[in-house]
Amino acid sequence: MNLDRINKLLDKKDYTKIRDIFKEVDEVDIADILDEYDAKTTLLLFRLLPKEKAADVFAYLSVEQKTQISMLVSDSELVAIIDDLFFDDKIDYLEEMPASVVKRILKNASENERRLINQFLNYPENSAGSLMTIEFVDLKKEMMISAAMEKIRRIGLDRETIYTCYIIDSKRRLEGTVSLRELVLAPKDSRVDDIMRQDPIAVHTHDDQEFVADIFKRYDLLAVPVVDQENRLVGIITVDDIIDVIDDENTEDFHKMAALQPTQEEYLELGVISLAKKRIAWLLILMISAAFTGFIIQKYERALESVVALTVFIPMLMSTGGNAGSQASTLIIRGIALGEIEFKNTKAILWKELRVSLIVGVGLAIINFLRIYYLEGYTSNIALTVSLTTLATVVTAKIIGSVLPVLAKLAKVDPAIMAAPLITTIVDTLTLIVYFQLATKIMGI
Amino acid sequence: MNLDRINKLLDKKDYTKIRDIFKEVDEVDIADILDEYDAKTTLLLFRLLPKEKAADVFAYLSVEQKTQISMLVSDSELVAIIDDLFFDDKIDYLEEMPASVVKRILKNASENERRLINQFLNYPENSAGSLMTIEFVDLKKEMMISAAMEKIRRIGLDRETIYTCYIIDSKRRLEGTVSLRELVLAPKDSRVDDIMRQDPIAVHTHDDQEFVADIFKRYDLLAVPVVDQENRLVGIITVDDIIDVIDDENTEDFHKMAALQPTQEEYLELGVISLAKKRIAWLLILMISAAFTGFIIQKYERALESVVALTVFIPMLMSTGGNAGSQASTLIIRGIALGEIEFKNTKAILWKELRVSLIVGVGLAIINFLRIYYLEGYTSNIALTVSLTTLATVVTAKIIGSVLPVLAKLAKVDPAIMAAPLITTIVDTLTLIVYFQLATKIMGI
Repeated sequence: MNLDRINKLLDKKDYTKIRDIFKEVDEVDIADILDEYDAKTTLLLFRLLPKEKAADVFAYLSVEQKTQISMLVSDSELVAIIDDLFFDDKIDYLEEMPASVVKRILKNASENERRLINQFLNYPENSAGSLMTIEFVDLKKEMMISAAMEKIRRIGLDRETIYTCYIIDSKRRLEGTVSLRELVLAPKDSRVDDIMRQDPIAVHTHDDQEFVADIFKRYDLLAVPVVDQENRLVGIITVDDIIDVIDDENTEDFHKMAALQPTQEEYLELGVISLAKKRIAWLLILMISAAFTGFIIQKYERALESVVALTVFIPMLMSTGGNAGSQASTLIIRGIALGEIEFKNTKAILWKELRVSLIVGVGLAIINFLRIYYLEGYTSNIALTVSLTTLATVVTAKIIGSVLPVLAKLAKVDPAIMAAPLITTIVDTLTLIVYFQLATKIMGI
Repeated sequence: MNLDRINKLLDKKDYTKIRDIFKEVDEVDIADILDEYDAKTTLLLFRLLPKEKAADVFAYLSVEQKTQISMLVSDSELVAIIDDLFFDDKIDYLEEMPASVVKRILKNASENERRLINQFLNYPENSAGSLMTIEFVDLKKEMMISAAMEKIRRIGLDRETIYTCYIIDSKRRLEGTVSLRELVLAPKDSRVDDIMRQDPIAVHTHDDQEFVADIFKRYDLLAVPVVDQENRLVGIITVDDIIDVIDDENTEDFHKMAALQPTQEEYLELGVISLAKKRIAWLLILMISAAFTGFIIQKYERALESVVALTVFIPMLMSTGGNAGSQASTLIIRGIALGEIEFKNTKAILWKELRVSLIVGVGLAIINFLRIYYLEGYTSNIALTVSLTTLATVVTAKIIGSVLPVLAKLAKVDPAIMAAPLITTIVDTLTLIVYFQLATKIMGI
């Protein structure tokens, strides 16, 4: 709707009206509107933005638009735009830009700024350091509340959050935190160290982002301080960035469990070759490992020759085993990811899965027997073989599907990797062995 | 570590020291410690808590401990504990407790409170209403900033957040929001309506929690107001509760994609019967639908009889198809969940998957041919049949796997449901048809 209005106003060149609309609309929505235009129109619209919104809108633009705009504007305008970004957005931006743009920005940065940027660009991907920003409010513990509030009023506008303030000593070591809530509600004649929280929860620059997200979830935080090895405060991470991390980590698990090399890029933005690369490795491994099933069938070729009907049920048995296994492994993998399941629960899991799989397996086995014997008119021997195999498959699949992820976690392998490949291969192989063993025993072939 | 210290102090009955430890430790960690003890010791420890921490610790206790404590204490102590809970925690608590406890609480509540509780208990599960709390700061638009700050100081202690304040008119209709940051940074002689944000982002009591979570992600909010149908402000939702929602929604998708009826309860807390129930329905549906594959094999029984070797490759072909399909469907389902993919992208997806699947399919087909013909010494006819089927399967699986979730979304069916059941059944069936068709053509059987 806003897009239509702006289209019409652009036709009429009524830039004052556009400016008025931009005053009312949220930065995120403005960025969405700007993403619809070509680079030149976007730049025109971008220049109409109220100054205090421009940096935020820029941060929300698509990578493509950011690149285009960066190429179009002069060095001085580029520096002006970038200077207003919060430091974490600035780093994200530099990581996305082509080398030529990065060069122009570093050339125009101060010596100090350049050193800081390089330091941040060097934090490992997915580490706390790569997520943090430097715009926080730092206080001294001997400050009076009124002086602290005065400082917040003076510098707060440029800080990503003022809702948690950080108390540091003369060597910038983190001594405590105090929330704006506590500052506002405290008696005016108290000092910061009367109300500050000592030993605050903090993370290290090299901590993994998944660990940081777990800290946020556990303690319901709005921001967390990041310290270096000497406990010096170097940055903070805010909850909005952690929400993105949670989505990214979940996407990674979804991808791994579907035998994909995980990616954080959007599907529609990935090229055909990179999509193919992300898939072919696992497909190949799984295809080759599926050759096991072929060897087993070869071994029992004579049995199959005498009772070709046995072939009819192989796909059904294997897919039932696969499904039963992935049900169990998904429950366990997800439980591990949410911190609900640990290695010490293995025995409880085994006992639970044994009982669940017996109930489910017996149910499916009975239905299979009735269907095969009465509805489809096969011999009772075949029906018995298939239904007993169903039971064995479900039990095996559930036990293996539930225990392997826990063992993976113990061996410090990502449990999500276990889901697709190993479990299906093992279950498929075992299913076929049981099937043919039962067939030869029951039917005497 | 704290647990060990408290164990020792409990033995020595040194309750003063325990009290001191509790002053320093975070509420979440205290709750974890208390969960380790039997109900009576927990109650003893609980009574040692500083008053301002007791309610928070109680909210974080396990359901079991909450129930036990509620049964052990007198009516008046129970009321005292519950009264200090934030309203959303109170509702969660009432939903978890056995009827006898709920009755005792309602009996001791005021008429007004009882009405409010019943209203909140009636909001649909997973709706905004079921997530919200009533402890927010409301302001009037004609207030001076100083008066607003005064009000916040007066009532702020009992509010879940003071970082966003809500401006309502005489009929409690939502007129705007203002953040504490804006209040603190504003000139002291301005009025609330000088700085408030008009038309604030708000959700409705009956909006689904997934929608609410998307709003938080899009606009990087710390809290969102909840209004009823007359736009009256009835509550707020804070970001910490939304993080839980994001995890829950992801868990739901993981479960659905693994053919499980989703559950929000922890695995270890679920009974064997309920676990079995959550699994057997889909397993049964999938088992029955896998019968299709059986019919196709039956139809080509004669071909199999003459070349039993064909059976050898059926499991490998089917699992390759299944894996290729779930790779594509997972990418698309996840993209839809994150709002990156919509129905209008269908053509782009199809074109992309066609090319990706041709690259991947040809690669796998060549490797299969080499393996089967050279390594395993089958005839070139069999090797050709299997490798062409591999190609066809990969292409079919990727196309169906990617398009079905988009179509599901269009038909307002949850795309995650599509992943396991429909796609595998269709791909399995098509794979077998192609396989036998090719076999009869190529080998002339």
